This record gives sequence, C-alpha cells and structure tokens, in this order.
Amino acid sequence: MKNNELGLIGLAVMGQNLVMNLADHGYKTAVFNRTAEKTEVFIEESKTACSKPENLEPQFDIKSFVESIERPRRILLMVQAGAGVDAVIESLLPHLEKGDLIADLGNSFFRDSVRREKALADKGILYAGIGVSGGEEGARRGPSIMPGGSNAAQKMLEDIFRSISAEVTEADGTSIRCSKWLGRGGSGHFVKMVHNGIEYGDMEIISEAYQLMTSQKLGTDFKLTNDQAAAAFEDWNKTELAGFLNEITADILKYKNPDGSALIDSILDAAGQKGTGKWTVEESFNLVRPVTVISQAVYARGLSSMKEQRMQAAAKLSNSSIGDTAAASALSSSSKEILTDLADAMLASRIISYTQGFSLIMAASKDYNWDLQAADLAEIWQGGCIIRSSLLTPIKMAFQKSGTLESLLFDDYFANRITELAPGWRRSAARAVLWGIPVPGITAALSFYDGFRSERLPANMIQAQRDYFGGHMYERTDKARGEWFHTDWTGHGGKAASTAYNA
Amino acid sequence: MKNNELGLIGLAVMGQNLVMNLADHGYKTAVFNRTAEKTEVFIEESKTACSKPENLEPQFDIKSFVESIERPRRILLMVQAGAGVDAVIESLLPHLEKGDLIADLGNSFFRDSVRREKALADKGILYAGIGVSGGEEGARRGPSIMPGGSNAAQKMLEDIFRSISAEVTEADGTSIRCSKWLGRGGSGHFVKMVHNGIEYGDMEIISEAYQLMTSQKLGTDFKLTNDQAAAAFEDWNKTELAGFLNEITADILKYKNPDGSALIDSILDAAGQKGTGKWTVEESFNLVRPVTVISQAVYARGLSSMKEQRMQAAAKLSNSSIGDTAAASALSSSSKEILTDLADAMLASRIISYTQGFSLIMAASKDYNWDLQAADLAEIWQGGCIIRSSLLTPIKMAFQKSGTLESLLFDDYFANRITELAPGWRRSAARAVLWGIPVPGITAALSFYDGFRSERLPANMIQAQRDYFGGHMYERTDKARGEWFHTDWTGHGGKAASTAYNA
Repeated sequence: MKNNELGLIGLAVMGQNLVMNLADHGYKTAVFNRTAEKTEVFIEESKTACSKPENLEPQFDIKSFVESIERPRRILLMVQAGAGVDAVIESLLPHLEKGDLIADLGNSFFRDSVRREKALADKGILYAGIGVSGGEEGARRGPSIMPGGSNAAQKMLEDIFRSISAEVTEADGTSIRCSKWLGRGGSGHFVKMVHNGIEYGDMEIISEAYQLMTSQKLGTDFKLTNDQAAAAFEDWNKTELAGFLNEITADILKYKNPDGSALIDSILDAAGQKGTGKWTVEESFNLVRPVTVISQAVYARGLSSMKEQRMQAAAKLSNSSIGDTAAASALSSSSKEILTDLADAMLASRIISYTQGFSLIMAASKDYNWDLQAADLAEIWQGGCIIRSSLLTPIKMAFQKSGTLESLLFDDYFANRITELAPGWRRSAARAVLWGIPVPGITAALSFYDGFRSERLPANMIQAQRDYFGGHMYERTDKARGEWFHTDWTGHGGKAASTAYNA
Repeated sequence: MKNNELGLIGLAVMGQNLVMNLADHGYKTAVFNRTAEKTEVFIEESKTACSKPENLEPQFDIKSFVESIERPRRILLMVQAGAGVDAVIESLLPHLEKGDLIADLGNSFFRDSVRREKALADKGILYAGIGVSGGEEGARRGPSIMPGGSNAAQKMLEDIFRSISAEVTEADGTSIRCSKWLGRGGSGHFVKMVHNGIEYGDMEIISEAYQLMTSQKLGTDFKLTNDQAAAAFEDWNKTELAGFLNEITADILKYKNPDGSALIDSILDAAGQKGTGKWTVEESFNLVRPVTVISQAVYARGLSSMKEQRMQAAAKLSNSSIGDTAAASALSSSSKEILTDLADAMLASRIISYTQGFSLIMAASKDYNWDLQAADLAEIWQGGCIIRSSLLTPIKMAFQKSGTLESLLFDDYFANRITELAPGWRRSAARAVLWGIPVPGITAALSFYDGFRSERLPANMIQAQRDYFGGHMYERTDKARGEWFHTDWTGHGGKAASTAYNA
C-alpha cells in the first residue's frame, strides 16, 4: 500500500507509452484502465517492452488504485478529452484527500481545464492541464510536454515531466529538456491547442506541395513520381525546412506495397477535422488574432471528407476546360526552378503560420494573465513533438532577443528572410492558381503577409459600406481614434446611430 | 387598453424604422424603450417621419405596455442580441399570459433562440426567432424578413411580416414579397446568420477589387483613381455583378468632401469582426461545410483592426523589395483586360461564397430537421436586404429545378458559368499574388473550387502522416469505407490503436 510514487489512468496507446517511459525513468507507478483486460494485456507486454517493468503496478479498482499511491497523490489522466475526463474525475473524487493532485495529459479544451481547476480547488484538490505531443514514439522515448497550472502543482510535477521529456542538444552543445512549466491556469492546454493548430498548418502546407508536385496540371507537363517527390523532401530536409513532418513525408512517399506500388496512392484522401484545429480558429476570433493558415488547413480537411461531392464535381468541372493554358504556361520553368520556388513558398508559409500561432498565444497570455514566455514554447517544441523542426531555433532566438515581440515578422532575421523568400513564394502561388491546383494554405499565408505589411487596407470601404447601409459610423485617418462619424451618403438617410443592429 | 395589435420593444435605429413601417401599413403598435426619453423623442419625430403616426402608442412602463396589446399578444423585440434579449424577456414574463408570443427580430445566435423557445414553451409562451436584413432603409421601406419558429407562431406573425417586407417584381411581371416562413426552431436566425456571413464575403470581395484597382503594385503602373474605380463599379452594375453592395460602392467612391477630395480616402481602414460572421465560421466547422470566403472575410477585418502592427510592418516589409518585378509584369495587360478579368474573379468568387453558404444552410436544415427550401431563401433575399443582387435569380432557379441540389456547382448554369469565368479569375488571382496585393477572399474561393473539383486531394498524405506518428489508421481507396488500416511505417512502431490522443 502507498508504495507508488504516482498513478496513471488510461491505457490507450499514449497512456501505455507514457507510463512505460515513467517506469524506465524509475517512477513506481500504479496503472488503471476502465477495462481490466486492457490492463492485464498491457502489464504482460510491458515485461518485454519496458526496461523496468517492475515499476508498473496494475490496479483493478479505482479505490485500491488511489490507495496504492503515496500522499500527496499525483494522478495522471490520459483519457478521452471531454466527458471522459469529467467521468474519471468523478470516479476519483470519493477516494482523494486534500492536497492530492490530478493532472490531465489529454487534449482537453483549455476552458474545461480552467473550469476543472476551479471546481477541484473548492474541494482542496489540485489540478493541472498538461499538453503532451509526440505521438506514440514521443510518449515512449520522450515527448514535448507543455504543463500549465498553479505553483503548487508545478512543485509536484515539474521534475517528473522534465525527466521523461525529450532531450535536445543545442548547436552550442548544451542539452535541454523539452518540458518547462509554462504558466498558470489553462495555459498548458491552450499552448497544446495552438501547437496542434500549427501542426494542422504544417501538414497542410506539405500536402499542398505534394499535390503541386505530383498532380496533372493545366498547361504544363511538370509532374513528379512519388520517388522524385520523396527525393525533393529529402533534399529539403538538409535545409531550413528540415523537421519531423518533412522527414516522415519522404518516408511515406517511398513506402512500397508488397507488389512494389506506392502505399500512398492507395490511401483514401479523406481526413477528419474536429478538435484542436477548430478550437484554435474559434479562439483566434475571440482574441482577434487571425490564424488563416490553420483555418484553411481545417477547412481543407473538411473538404477532403466531402469525397462523394468531390467525385461528382470532378466529373462536371473537369480540368481541361477551366483555365487559360497560355497563362498557365507563362510561369513555367525548369523542374529545378519550380522546386526551388516551392521550397521558398513552403518555408515562407510556415513562417507566417508560426507568426500567427505565436501571436495568438501571446495575445491569450496577456488576456488571461498567464505570463507565458514565447521563447520557452519554441524551446520545448524543438524536440519530442510532432512540429519539431529547424525553424524553431530562429524563432526561439527572436523571442529571446525580445520577449515582447508582437510579431515574428518584426524580428530582423525573419523580416529579411521572408523578403528573400517572397519572389519564389509569389511565383509558386501564381503557378498553382494558374495550374488549377488548390493551395489554400500557401495563398492564405501570402495574403496575410501582403495584408500585414499594408499600411492601408481596404477596410475603409467596409466601414463606409456599413455606415451607408446601417448607420454604423466610421473613424477617420485625420481624427483621433474613438471619434466616430456618420455620413448621409444618399442625401435622404436617417440620423439615428445604430446600436441594436450589428451586421 | 388593449387597443394595440402588437408591441415593439427597442427604439434604436432599426426598431424606430421597423415600427414606422408597421404603422404605415396600418398596424396599431405600442412602443417601449428602456430609456423613456428616447421614446418621447421618437414619438415626436414620427409625427413627420411616419405617414400614420397615430398608429404608434408610446408606453413608459413594461406593465402598461403589455396590457395595451390585444390578446394573444404579439411582442416584437429589436434589442441588443445576447444578454439584452434575456433581460427584456425576464422583464416581460410577469405580465404575459398563456398564448402570448415574443418574436426576437435582432441578430440573436440561433442556439439562443432554440433555448429561449424551449424555456418559454414550458411557460405557455410562444417564441419565434426572426432574421431581418436591410439596414435603416430596409427596415423603413421594406426589409427582407427571415422568420423561423413553430406553426402557431407562424399563424400569428406571417401576414404582418409579408405586408411590411420588401416587394420585388420578377422578370415575368409577378410581384413577390421578401418574407416567407422558413422553418422550425432556430432556422430564422440561422439563415440570418449565414446571410450576414455571405454579406461579409461580398463586402470582402468588393474590397479586394477596390484595393487591387487603386493601390500601388509591384512591377506595373496600373492604378485607378477613385472616380475611375467608381466608373468600373457602375459598369459592373449593368452586368451579373449588379447588386446593392456593388451599387453603393460606386456611390461611396464618388462621394466628395466639401474641398473636393474623396471621403473614402479619409476613412480609417479598421473594421470590426465579431458576431454573425464569426458564428457562421464556427457552425461551418460543426457541420463540416467549409465557408472559406466568409472565414477569410472575418479574418481580413481582424487584420485590418491591427492597424498599429500593420504600420510597423509596412515600414519593415516595404513593397519595393519583396517581389519579382519580372514575374509581376508577366501577366500585365491593358487596363480593360485587367478589369474584365477582375469582374470574372469577383463573380466567380461570389458564386463560390454562395455555394458554400447555401451548402452550410442546407446541411443545418438536414441536421436540425428544419425542412428549409433553398429556393425560398434566394427568393426573399432578392429584395430588401443588404445582399440583394442579380445573382440570386439564377440561384433561385437552380434550387427550384432541384430542391435537393447538394451544391450550386452541380447546377448546369453555374457549372458552365464558372467554367467560363475561370481563366479571368485565375489571371486576376495570379496578378494580385505577383503584385503584392492581398486577395484572401478571391484566392480562398479559387482554392475551394480547385479542391472541390479534385477527385483526388492530398488528404491521403495527411492520413498517412497521422498514422505514422499517432497510429490513427487510414482507409484505402481499394477497400470499403469504414475499414481501417495501420502501417508500421518505421519497422519498429507500436501496434496499439490510438483512441485517446487525437491530434
């Protein structure tokens, strides 16, 4: 009794791998799963899969599970986000004592974590929302961990997470751990949410490049095989584009079925879209920090899932008749030039997506008083997680130079780099647009960039229209902000200000 | 006492205009406003502004207001959406009797309307959510009205709304009213929400065209004055682009300050973005029906409001150094060709935006059992509302031909038309991309179109990646849907299926 240092509930793949990682690092851990059979099978398998299986203690009812853990207890949840987490908390509550702690390591919505922390605080129970990224491999060998919560929670958990997280060696030889206590409240799950949104964006940009390289196009015969595309991704992995997702894309493109054909060609092109990507977009509206690349990535998955409609549309709106083949070939170049430009487009689009994501996180930190350090995020994403990549190094440096940087594009390195990338980025986007290849992420990134660097945007027209039809009034460039004007555009309009009717 | 046929609460501009419209049409109406002074001023002004001011009866406390209305009572609310509506309902409840009806004519969130209808039904009070569009002028002279609610509510309200709504004469001489009872539950406010989303999209597309016409560009000297741009919008108003928003854009561009300068140039380019546009995007995620043009329009407003950051970015990322001027001039043409292509881009982008919006509404109707008819929506949007335009006529015809049309692009007229428009659309998008002009709406529309007509999208890569790093599994093109496969991509991966960790 009470011989375990901590406990973990939820033995799906991530839970299994994370708890074996804990055991490897010497943590005596009680494990519990809703179905006992899964626990039994796991414990059996851990005998060979885990280097120190003796650190894992199976428990088959929740009471004994709790009682087997030393006080104050540390209980990690790796269960389905949403109602699943609430149900497990309910089942734990009768057995917990003041000062015990529950840490939710799933992909919970950050507002749920805020709510749970508050509700449990009233009962004297600590709660922490912890983001974990890295997939199966990461959980097993060292994930990126994004913990958020109170100082008291931090004291009970910080060392554990640091010791099981990924280790990365910096250029100067120093070794860092991919876990740092980020901030208060729901900050861990907020950061994980945006991490996943950025992951959506990175995957979308890679997919667009893949389609642009390998599809039939209007007015050009540029079309790579899967192996040629894989070679391009391998080349890019020696450049600033290097990263986990880029790397596995090459692996995937090369993977062959037993008959020698490429597996990728047999995989259904319909992806799911709910969860963290969608939440990121919703929060971006609340905080007025556009994440256009992520939004287009979520929509691209949605469109992919409308497979039947697309097949009908493909028959009705065929490629041959929808473009201007002369224009389409206007920017045709050698394959090498096309690929060089495409690499620039991918990197530039990713820079924009990270700019947007960090801007969202830092706006949230300000709004919710989390006191996050952007450089910390870049640092702990350098290893273990799905979006680990070379790009995070200059991002970290930019935020180390200036912790209050409002936009990555204000950093000299990124301002210069994106200026260098712009011509190839523009040519790539123009080619795709003329060739009939969908590039919603790349063009959304470019439009954001061109909008962001526009001192003057056409929103003056939108404000004029809203005043014209709704009496919404407008501000003027030659007057102070907050001073509002109405024009009787038609000469016969009303004079009442609109307060109830906001279009 | 009890001599009024109905009552209206809320005398901001929309409420004032709508109630004068009711009075004009002979409805004896009690009016009430939270602040008595507003009511007094309004009643005084209505003596000249309204043709039958004797139909308006001011009331200064809520009890007398309710008692002055004949039973079963019909009470229209035109108050601030959200807490404002709930507060007014609370204040009414003690004075209402069974069978009385409250109709909310503001921009309420449709889920709030569903909730209120249910809560009031328990007390024997009817509730209806009514969308109203048309701005000040529309409310006064005849708006487009989108009513939703039960059959009982329909019986009490339908005639009123038809009689005060806009009247439109069809090509064949028949006259129609721009109000039709749409469906049950929150359908009226849902339809109004998407109407507003579409309005966001239309305004964004016009704004992009305006910026493209009048801004400095990379590698070209094409730049119109406000008057030249106004002339283009006037020309377009004789084409399929004709519509209210197009028309007022020309008016706005021509409007001069007393010193002869254009007012538009002095209006601040920072637009608000919360509310119905944002809700439309959120619901599009829930129903998996992408509304990419609306989403980009909401974000463009968000970006416009980040004025200080943009000014800083404009200094740091100036136009001169960010493009390839040779490529930028590759598609340069005569002004006439550029404008012709731009008109095609605007129309095509609007067709996509309406395709997306109708698809979202019809998915909601199916999901929530509202039994909406798409042709009805197109019909009542033909007059009175902000998005009234020529485009609604072929849309109505398409849905009259086939009420179950899943996408407007499956209709022969639109399939042919968008195919004709595609070359100019592509050239316009490519020009903007090369010229450094942000066109998030136009390019998002084009990418949706190219994605929609893609039998094969690169989501197979996304599914492969998710299986690679998270064991999420994939379906295959050569197997039945619902059959899932996992590949051990690295040769050393786990075999457990991912159930708890959904990236």
